[in-house]
Amino acid sequence: MNGCFFSFEGPEGAGKTTIISKLERFLREQGMTVLTTREPGGVRIAEAIRSLILNREYTEMDGRTEALLYAAARRQHLLERIVPALEAGCIVLCDRFVDSSLAYQGFARGLGIEEVWKINEFAIDGYMPDLTIYFDLDPRIGLERIRHNAREVNRLDLEALSFHDKVREGYRRLVERFADRIVVIDASRSLDDVFAETAAVVLARLKGR
Amino acid sequence: MNGCFFSFEGPEGAGKTTIISKLERFLREQGMTVLTTREPGGVRIAEAIRSLILNREYTEMDGRTEALLYAAARRQHLLERIVPALEAGCIVLCDRFVDSSLAYQGFARGLGIEEVWKINEFAIDGYMPDLTIYFDLDPRIGLERIRHNAREVNRLDLEALSFHDKVREGYRRLVERFADRIVVIDASRSLDDVFAETAAVVLARLKGR
Repeated sequence: MNGCFFSFEGPEGAGKTTIISKLERFLREQGMTVLTTREPGGVRIAEAIRSLILNREYTEMDGRTEALLYAAARRQHLLERIVPALEAGCIVLCDRFVDSSLAYQGFARGLGIEEVWKINEFAIDGYMPDLTIYFDLDPRIGLERIRHNAREVNRLDLEALSFHDKVREGYRRLVERFADRIVVIDASRSLDDVFAETAAVVLARLKGR
Repeated sequence: MNGCFFSFEGPEGAGKTTIISKLERFLREQGMTVLTTREPGGVRIAEAIRSLILNREYTEMDGRTEALLYAAARRQHLLERIVPALEAGCIVLCDRFVDSSLAYQGFARGLGIEEVWKINEFAIDGYMPDLTIYFDLDPRIGLERIRHNAREVNRLDLEALSFHDKVREGYRRLVERFADRIVVIDASRSLDDVFAETAAVVLARLKGR
């Protein structure tokens, strides 16, 4: 039996972490084996790379350097955590994957979706999510939720709102381009509503296997 | 006035560092402005990436992860050190550049020269050396010289000799492919002979500007 690979995308504050955690419990109650992960996922090399990317001191970091580092961390996490789980027949729920790089670095930072896709194609070497759920949300609402929850603010959070608007536009282009793979869910609603729709979409995909 | 960008390639123990240092003094005596560098070149982000690559504990590091990390460090070093020097009219002498990734990761680790070229194309974004000098040497002689000089042995040095033979074969393919850019110098001879030939090649290229 083969596993199934789901990725989850969207801005900070969209409720991704909470929804994924509820989904994991829900699928386990149905008797399924689930691995929930997010880059760098406890993989020590990927952790080391990510702490470099998120270091707030490194304001001189170039956009291409950042994109290459994300691709490197992705590669190691994919190989050590996702691939073995899929081969063992698990359902993998991954908080952010390749689309984050395409939307943030490719579109919002202006490197080009095609350019960033090239280095990620090298990194993933054929492994793509079976389905991607994109939580769509006005970044103003997302940032307000972050401030309210008092999570520690990192370098990316500090970008101007215009940047986060561009990220949203980037995701919209990806939704058009990868219409067969990406499902859009409106994340401005209550957590219960967003969860119910997410669970329905995931179950439908699992039945279709 | 535009600068001129030279890169130097070849195995450890070929005498690259010594030759480059003699060349720097020689060019300065001719009144030229010279920047000698090597990745990561004191650029703090590139230094942090390189210490990750060379960490001997990380035996689980995948070849693609390593190639992406080298490309990331290269990008940051290029942007912070090489490009400003070239724009100021300097002669840049760089100890290893893109060909190292193509020979080591692309050919010797079997990732494919074309595949590794793609991610490096993204990293260098159009900046290539005007001339590359490849010091050709049997890796047995190179390793013997390293042991004799008692330099600290890193993770890459510990690879089997068969790996270093493949690296040499990789460089030979690059020499064929980039015949206009790469000059081969036999590094099995005395340092004085190798230096004399190197200086002659570099001066000829500078006169041709």
